[in-house]
This record gives sequence, C-alpha cells and structure tokens, in this order.
Amino acid sequence: MKLATYKDGTKDGQLVVVSKDLTQAHYASHIATKMQQLLDDWNFISPQLEDLYQTLNSGRARHAFPFDPKMCMAPLPRAYQWADGSAYINHVELVRAARGAEVPANFYTDPLLYQGGSDDFLGPTDPIRCPSEEFGIDFEGELAVITADVAMQTDSNDAVSAVRLIMLANDVSLRNLIPEEMAKGFGFYQSKPATAFSPVAVTPDELGEAWSKGRVHLTLTCTLNGRRVGMCEAGEEMTFGFGELIAHAAKTRNIRAGSVFGSGTISNKAVEKNGKKDWPKGYSCIAEKRAMEMLLSGQMSTPFMKYGDTIRLEMKGLDGQSVFGCIDQRVAPLQDPEPPALAEPSSGDDSQAKK
Amino acid sequence: MKLATYKDGTKDGQLVVVSKDLTQAHYASHIATKMQQLLDDWNFISPQLEDLYQTLNSGRARHAFPFDPKMCMAPLPRAYQWADGSAYINHVELVRAARGAEVPANFYTDPLLYQGGSDDFLGPTDPIRCPSEEFGIDFEGELAVITADVAMQTDSNDAVSAVRLIMLANDVSLRNLIPEEMAKGFGFYQSKPATAFSPVAVTPDELGEAWSKGRVHLTLTCTLNGRRVGMCEAGEEMTFGFGELIAHAAKTRNIRAGSVFGSGTISNKAVEKNGKKDWPKGYSCIAEKRAMEMLLSGQMSTPFMKYGDTIRLEMKGLDGQSVFGCIDQRVAPLQDPEPPALAEPSSGDDSQAKK
Repeated sequence: MKLATYKDGTKDGQLVVVSKDLTQAHYASHIATKMQQLLDDWNFISPQLEDLYQTLNSGRARHAFPFDPKMCMAPLPRAYQWADGSAYINHVELVRAARGAEVPANFYTDPLLYQGGSDDFLGPTDPIRCPSEEFGIDFEGELAVITADVAMQTDSNDAVSAVRLIMLANDVSLRNLIPEEMAKGFGFYQSKPATAFSPVAVTPDELGEAWSKGRVHLTLTCTLNGRRVGMCEAGEEMTFGFGELIAHAAKTRNIRAGSVFGSGTISNKAVEKNGKKDWPKGYSCIAEKRAMEMLLSGQMSTPFMKYGDTIRLEMKGLDGQSVFGCIDQRVAPLQDPEPPALAEPSSGDDSQAKK
Repeated sequence: MKLATYKDGTKDGQLVVVSKDLTQAHYASHIATKMQQLLDDWNFISPQLEDLYQTLNSGRARHAFPFDPKMCMAPLPRAYQWADGSAYINHVELVRAARGAEVPANFYTDPLLYQGGSDDFLGPTDPIRCPSEEFGIDFEGELAVITADVAMQTDSNDAVSAVRLIMLANDVSLRNLIPEEMAKGFGFYQSKPATAFSPVAVTPDELGEAWSKGRVHLTLTCTLNGRRVGMCEAGEEMTFGFGELIAHAAKTRNIRAGSVFGSGTISNKAVEKNGKKDWPKGYSCIAEKRAMEMLLSGQMSTPFMKYGDTIRLEMKGLDGQSVFGCIDQRVAPLQDPEPPALAEPSSGDDSQAKK
C-alpha cells in the first residue's frame, strides 16, 4: 500500500492512504491519525489500512479526494532516528578518487553510517532553506526505509524483514561545511541540514520483484533545473543492502519502530569509452558530477545549487508508473515570505544521462 | 518544577509530577499523558503542571504516591533529536594529551557536537546492556537539556531561553569501537549505544542561581562500583554553555521542541602539586582516569567496565538536596533474564575525589 502524511498545521500531520496510481487519497483518521501510531502498532493497524487501500484502488472509497503532493509532509514528518548510509561504494570511490584519496579496505566490508537529524524532516515540495549560497548546497538522491523494532545484534537477513516502508530521500548536503566537520572527527552536523522525503512511502510488496535482498532494482531519475542529469540504477550496485545497514546499526543498540535508514547517494560505476571513463547514467548529486569533471579534465566546473535552483527526484516501477511521487524542491534563502512556485518538470535531457 | 515519566509498558510512558524533595509523585494524566505532548504545547500545559507541582509540594495533592526512581523511564523516553556536545574543553585536552595529540585551535572557538541515537533512551536504573565486555564500556557523566522550538540561525543568547528542562545523562561509550569509527570520518554510531537519563527533569528555575548563562554551577558526583571517583564542578569550566551548543546546532537547521542536547563529559582542569599534575576533583568517565594515568606514569591501568559493574551519578543543589535523583546503572550482558538488583550507594571515597 501507499501512505502519505497531509499537512494540517501540526508537527505530525494527518495520515492518508494514497491510491496505487497516486491520483486519489483518503484520510485514515478512523483507523490511525499519525504515521508513528501505525509504526508503533503495525500488526493491528496495517491490515485495516490495506483494506482502505484496496477500496480506494477499486474506486469505491466514499470520501476519496484528489491526491496533491504539495499538501504532503514527509511520510513520517519527525522520527526518533534517521541514520544515513553510504551503501553505494562507487560514490565513495568517485569522490575520493577526485581528491586523490584511497578508499580504505574496510569500506568494502563494513558499512558507513552517519546519524542525522530527524526532528524536522521536509516534505517533498518544501523549499530547501539555507542561510547562505556559500555553503555549497547539494542534493543527494537516495532510497530510505522505515523499520519496525529491531533487537540488538539482529543479523542482516532478519533485519531485511523489519523494513515496513520504502521512500525516496533528498539528503541535502552543504559541501563546503563538510571538510571542517570531517576533520573534527565527530561526523556531520551543520553540513547535513533537514532531509526531504517523497510524498508517498510504500510497503515493500508494492515494488514486486524490484524489491530483492534489501535492494530496490529500479532507476532513480534526477532532474536538476529541468535537465535530467541522473538515471542511476539503484539495485545492482548497492554494495550493502538495507539488511546490512540495519544490522550494522543494531550491533550495539536496539532500533525502535519508526527509525529511518537511508541508502546514501545512488551511484553507478563508470564505463570505459575510447580509453576514457564515462558515466552514461549520470549522477545523483552534484559532488559526483564535480568529481567526474576533476577526473576527466582536472577541474570542477559544475557549481553547487543557488537560490532558485530546482531538484526533482523520481523513481518509476516495473509498470512504468511513479512509485513514490516526486521530490520537487527549490533552494531558497532563509527569509522568503512567499514560497516560490515549483518549476514544471521538463523532459530535457542532460548529455550525461542517456537511456 | 520536577517531572518524570513512569513505565507503563508503552514507549512513551506516563508523565508524572515529582515533589521538590523527590519523595512524592502524582500522575499528570488529567493534564497531559506524555512528556512530548508537554513540549509540543508548553505554554498551555506547563502552567497547569506547575499548579499540580505546588499542590504536591504543599502536601495537598489528593492522589500522590511515593516516588520510586526504579519505575522511571528517561524523562523523555524517545526523542526526535539527541545531540551531544563536548563542551568541557579540558576533557578533550586530557584525552588528546594522553595520546600525544594536539587540540586543534578551532576547538576553542567552535563547539564539538555529535548526533546520537534518540529512539531508545534508557531509564535511570535500566541496565547498560552490551554484547561484549571487549567493547571498552565506559560511562560519561553529563548534563543535558530539552529545548523548545529554535529557529535556524538563532543566536546563543536567545537559544538559552529555549531550554525547557534540565537533566543528568550517562552517555555510555564503547571506547574500543571509537578509533575505527573516528577514522572513517562519519562520527560515532556503534560506539555510542543507548544513553541513560536521570529520573527527573527540572525546569531551570529549580536550580535558582546555580543556573547562569546556560551553565549549571553545581557538582556532579560519580560513584563507580561504590567508590566516589568524581566530584567535578559543572559550571565554571564549561567552555561552551548550552546557549552556544544550541546556537551551533541551529546554524543550518531548525531545532524542534523536544530536542535533547548534552554537555559532554563534565571535566575539571588539573592543578600542579609538588611539580606534578593532580586532579583533586576526580573524573566523570574512565577514559579520563586512564588519560591521567598515562600522563603520570606512562600507562593506563584502570580497566573499562565489566558485567556487574555499577555507576551512580548525582548532583546536589545549593540546598544540598538531590536535584535530579540518581542515575544508578549496572552493566549487563545482552541476554540476562533476571534484571540484577541495584547496588546500594556507598559512601566510600576514591583518593582521586577529595572535597
């Protein structure tokens, strides 16, 4: 089933069930009002929501209304945990190669995971507010899952079955603040502001065969300022599946229902073309594009995002339909009384992204 | 006023008001059932709780019952954010000096802060469960605050007034897992398991003049296996007050009500005694004791905690009474069907801690 949270002026919003084709929605208030409530009592509440989902899909729901992603908060608007992995080792290889650094051997066997802020998630069309363009504003196209309770020391096979819901994430990063924070050794804080999520979170069965071994075998389309810049495949080259990421997290602690885990930037390997490296599937963050430029020409030319720039993330299912709806955001200054209108999606392709 | 959360089998527990002398409690269920509810609607709910607090203190509350810290969860049992500082620069200096490392200059001007897990806080007498004694189990005696909403870019003066509640924290650390995580640059994850909090959280006015400029000018007593090992003063040598910590956090993000910020290990400077360094106030974590040993004798002899070891943290107010109640925990293996009884507090002094 597909679930979303509608804005209602509160911090938790209102749980809604969304039709498979993302056209209709229905308040779930007679079953559960908040997403966390569902996650805390999944076995009792989810079958009732599934019933509503079937009714909605069949066109028989009596109080259905047109689904509007602009009304959405993050599916889980605030969470008790947000931990983001770096599960596509190619992303790490690329960014490190561009600065002439080796990838430590244990990066291939031991997942990277950072703890992020989860008190203030962004909805899919909320502006990315940033006090300064000088911070190096970047998007990161990712998958994310919401879990059930996971006991300490759970192994990766059992951890996969704790995945309740799957979404897209834009793990906004402030690149120019990262080096200083990395040097301090305490991880990211200021360099990782609020993360945005797709309008809809879906149960794993919605993905059919595309969900396998804790990986989503579908393509993420990233559209930057109306130009398609990334068409990376998310399954094959995910070095650590969500089972491994969650098991890594559970090594020394219990993970509680409603914890959100991110995949890290979805990234595909380069191919050789006329003796040169080429990335035909493009990129899911600007830092990767800049790394590619450095490796090819010795300098980075693509700038990070400025006020007014837009980013759109979408993933289509095996049936060709949008699975999660679009993350569709604009970068904005901190003080900006009038929320800017969203850019219309463009079909323009970037030369980096060829099907 | 003083507030606690009683265990009731749910993840959020039941909000109770606790008398100033920590002897009596009263359910707040007719006002608010959960701590987060209070934090989300502070201006409406807190005056009603204050009224109950006054009634309880005057002995006129009709359904008061004896307060039992063993019934307590963390005052806020799960939170949307837990960020822990390292605000006592002496702690950083000491630990770095012991391994021959310099303290970078910006550590004196720019607070250190790491994002921790907040989905599974421990109550004050919950066991510290750890899968292996080889992980280097350590306590860290700290102060922590719970905030109101804090808008992005709020300055440190305004940030201080966002402090709603103050507590003690035991930021349990797995020392032997830290070097590898630090080397990876993504910060702590496995090395920082669940954090425990004092039975009671108090509003700043409870501290009287001891609360000043975002600092608590009181002494934390740390008792390890029945021996008093630390009597560190928490106010004077706190390099960054809670205002600075929160403002640092709010540089690139909004902070939402119910966010918890920790001070880092409370630590006091050495004094010179017969030409040698001495730490008459002792220590608030074993890593510091080991650093002192390294500096004095070239080797670390105090072991980290083993199963069955106990740690007790307490802070007394200007009136000599316990402000927050005791954190009183025992280290235990993961599988341990019978929760161990808590050790009786001992009055034995360690030679390191002289009044």
